[in-house]
Amino acid sequence: MVTLQDYPAQVRAEVQQVREQVATLHQQLITWNLVVWTAGNVSQRLRTADLMVIKPSGVRYEFLTPQSMVVTDLEGNVIDGAESPSSDTASHAYIYRHMPEVYGVVHTHSTYATAWAATGKNIPCGLTMMGDEFGGPVPVGPFRLIGSEEIGKGVVETLEQYPHSPAVLMQNHGPFTIGKDAESAVKAAAMTEEVAHTMWVAAQLGDIIEIDPADIAKLNERYQNVYGQH
Amino acid sequence: MVTLQDYPAQVRAEVQQVREQVATLHQQLITWNLVVWTAGNVSQRLRTADLMVIKPSGVRYEFLTPQSMVVTDLEGNVIDGAESPSSDTASHAYIYRHMPEVYGVVHTHSTYATAWAATGKNIPCGLTMMGDEFGGPVPVGPFRLIGSEEIGKGVVETLEQYPHSPAVLMQNHGPFTIGKDAESAVKAAAMTEEVAHTMWVAAQLGDIIEIDPADIAKLNERYQNVYGQH
Amino acid sequence: MVTLQDYPAQVRAEVQQVREQVATLHQQLITWNLVVWTAGNVSQRLRTADLMVIKPSGVRYEFLTPQSMVVTDLEGNVIDGAESPSSDTASHAYIYRHMPEVYGVVHTHSTYATAWAATGKNIPCGLTMMGDEFGGPVPVGPFRLIGSEEIGKGVVETLEQYPHSPAVLMQNHGPFTIGKDAESAVKAAAMTEEVAHTMWVAAQLGDIIEIDPADIAKLNERYQNVYGQH
Amino acid sequence: MVTLQDYPAQVRAEVQQVREQVATLHQQLITWNLVVWTAGNVSQRLRTADLMVIKPSGVRYEFLTPQSMVVTDLEGNVIDGAESPSSDTASHAYIYRHMPEVYGVVHTHSTYATAWAATGKNIPCGLTMMGDEFGGPVPVGPFRLIGSEEIGKGVVETLEQYPHSPAVLMQNHGPFTIGKDAESAVKAAAMTEEVAHTMWVAAQLGDIIEIDPADIAKLNERYQNVYGQH
Repeated sequence: MVTLQDYPAQVRAEVQQVREQVATLHQQLITWNLVVWTAGNVSQRLRTADLMVIKPSGVRYEFLTPQSMVVTDLEGNVIDGAESPSSDTASHAYIYRHMPEVYGVVHTHSTYATAWAATGKNIPCGLTMMGDEFGGPVPVGPFRLIGSEEIGKGVVETLEQYPHSPAVLMQNHGPFTIGKDAESAVKAAAMTEEVAHTMWVAAQLGDIIEIDPADIAKLNERYQNVYGQH
Repeated sequence: MVTLQDYPAQVRAEVQQVREQVATLHQQLITWNLVVWTAGNVSQRLRTADLMVIKPSGVRYEFLTPQSMVVTDLEGNVIDGAESPSSDTASHAYIYRHMPEVYGVVHTHSTYATAWAATGKNIPCGLTMMGDEFGGPVPVGPFRLIGSEEIGKGVVETLEQYPHSPAVLMQNHGPFTIGKDAESAVKAAAMTEEVAHTMWVAAQLGDIIEIDPADIAKLNERYQNVYGQH
Repeated sequence: MVTLQDYPAQVRAEVQQVREQVATLHQQLITWNLVVWTAGNVSQRLRTADLMVIKPSGVRYEFLTPQSMVVTDLEGNVIDGAESPSSDTASHAYIYRHMPEVYGVVHTHSTYATAWAATGKNIPCGLTMMGDEFGGPVPVGPFRLIGSEEIGKGVVETLEQYPHSPAVLMQNHGPFTIGKDAESAVKAAAMTEEVAHTMWVAAQLGDIIEIDPADIAKLNERYQNVYGQH
Repeated sequence: MVTLQDYPAQVRAEVQQVREQVATLHQQLITWNLVVWTAGNVSQRLRTADLMVIKPSGVRYEFLTPQSMVVTDLEGNVIDGAESPSSDTASHAYIYRHMPEVYGVVHTHSTYATAWAATGKNIPCGLTMMGDEFGGPVPVGPFRLIGSEEIGKGVVETLEQYPHSPAVLMQNHGPFTIGKDAESAVKAAAMTEEVAHTMWVAAQLGDIIEIDPADIAKLNERYQNVYGQH
């Protein structure tokens, strides 16, 4: 069996760095109120090898440490770590294998995003920050059982139809988000919950004004290319 | 009168350990926003004697210490502790006497779960995490007055009809949850509030998609037997 | 002009003690999410003289200290303190003059309680914890402008009709609560917001089951006389 | 190119002081739950020169320091700072140029205020604290794209029609607030979210009682001239 000791020093160094990043980012799920108890998970793909680092299964957030994070290959086989990996590992791995530009994946059951997912309705695009971050509505993906790569397949299939969105609301389940690294995917998870909450509040008032698709395109173009530090 | 000093050293050691666990778990009720002021209580049954450890009545959370936790027998008689035990003590004791596999009981008035309880409606099963944790809808139990074991009877009777659920929403009152220890019952209390909140949000959007009972059974089977560290 | 130095040592000692209690209790308004920015105020009447201690006007919570609390007589005249007292001082004073058993008064604009107040609707009694704490519905009081004792009059008149309730929701304004000391009034403020939130959630589900008045009376009797440490 | 070193010592001293104030006030946006991830920004105009201090673009709140705050002139040109300024800089600058009494501007995407903005509906005045702080309804402004001064123009045009309001809800976008300094504008942002939340809750109950305009005028007059420490 292959172990982490069979990998070059450069890979082992990146593993250590990514374990620290991924452990820290799990605390952001708590900070932004995206998870309860042991729900939710963050992973990041490595740059130096076809490996990923992911949360152990069923461990409470206050007990997560960098060393408790599990290293697997992109088929989900454990390479290093004393704990069993998240039960969503096969789906994270599927996404990395089929979306080569993705290096971070996050899954939560955040309340408002999951509620939209329980009704099978896309979140309509009525906020400039949705134009910025999602380039349109936040899409719902298919119903899939947990424990195999079926959820990953559903995420990838849905994103093919919504190429600007970093998020899919898996029906009756909850959001999966992607990014160029784990931090971007965590940001997308936080933004998904915020727009799910805000648009739900607006929906209760009624008469949501949806944004013109041409304006959504301009917002998305500017945000993806101009916003932030360059 | 029997006192804790009449019990063997092994029991006294377990009492001390359980007092610490139960005191710590009360802080989790605050962390997950399940209680206000002095509401709510956690108990755990001992393995080494027919005793339980429970919160004192009407004490604010910041003043709870392991030593303030009250030890009673399974009829609710105080064996050790300077404070009066929770006014739900007789109901906790009833549950332990009638459900021998249960070693933890939690009661809260958490907002969304209690709101469902005020309408007498079961929470419909529209989330995979409900399939996982509850194996179906979260049931409402009967209306019962506080202060006797009548609430405990209502909990046991309801769970006989919903054998996969660790939670009952007592009508007009709030949730009671059970587990193999106090931590499991606190987890069930946190999950009860989360699914109560999420399904309430979904109910306001309308058109909840309920999950097929065959899929619920698969989710519950996997979660109870595969999820987490083994 | 009378100053604190004109009072006996016993009174000056109680003033110091009550300033510390009232300053600490203001932090509980933050802990339980009952106030924003500088809104809300807590006062306590003294046992040793016809004086009260109340929050200064328009000071942010992180800057409140025991010494910043203002001492007034029961007409609202300042006896000690460098700051102007709360603009609700005359109303607190009115309540103390007309309800001799009251030694604590709290006012907040807590979100859900204030929303009920904006519709002029009593909160219906659908929770055992409402039977416990309020002995029935939480009543709405009349609309009154701020800055005189008119609000205090409205509180007293409303409580004459709801003798078991420690809370009045002043129309379009927010809750006022009373107690045997400031801590009891803060507890009532926290409970008012919690039941306002829970019953609002239940109202959105529809079909609230109200509790039978005979059961409400039993709950209230038990809670006021048996609950807690005695 | 003009740099901060070209300004007199008095100006450089005020820049340092305002950088500290503005950095600290960004933490208040977190405290009052007004922003997610990197959204939102605070600025303050200087008294000693036609300059302003504003948040850098796309930086997470836990990494903001006084020194990371960007100094620009009132056309939005960077005078000092290693980071790019907020993408709302041109709009802040427009407001300062056209409203000479304004020395603080805040923008958030706070949930409930933004939801009203997504429906294009003013928040109706059903709370005495709205009379106090806003002198009537909180108005919605026009839809404008991000990245130019067009948002600033929309804010100024809307406030000309609502001279007592320190807040505008920009349609589909979120609230902008103004004040005599950045702290006042942050207070207005916190109050905007609170009244947006409370009035939304009331709207779900139905039958909001709006306050008589003559009473609103009295509340606003008293609050602006009597409330707080003078």
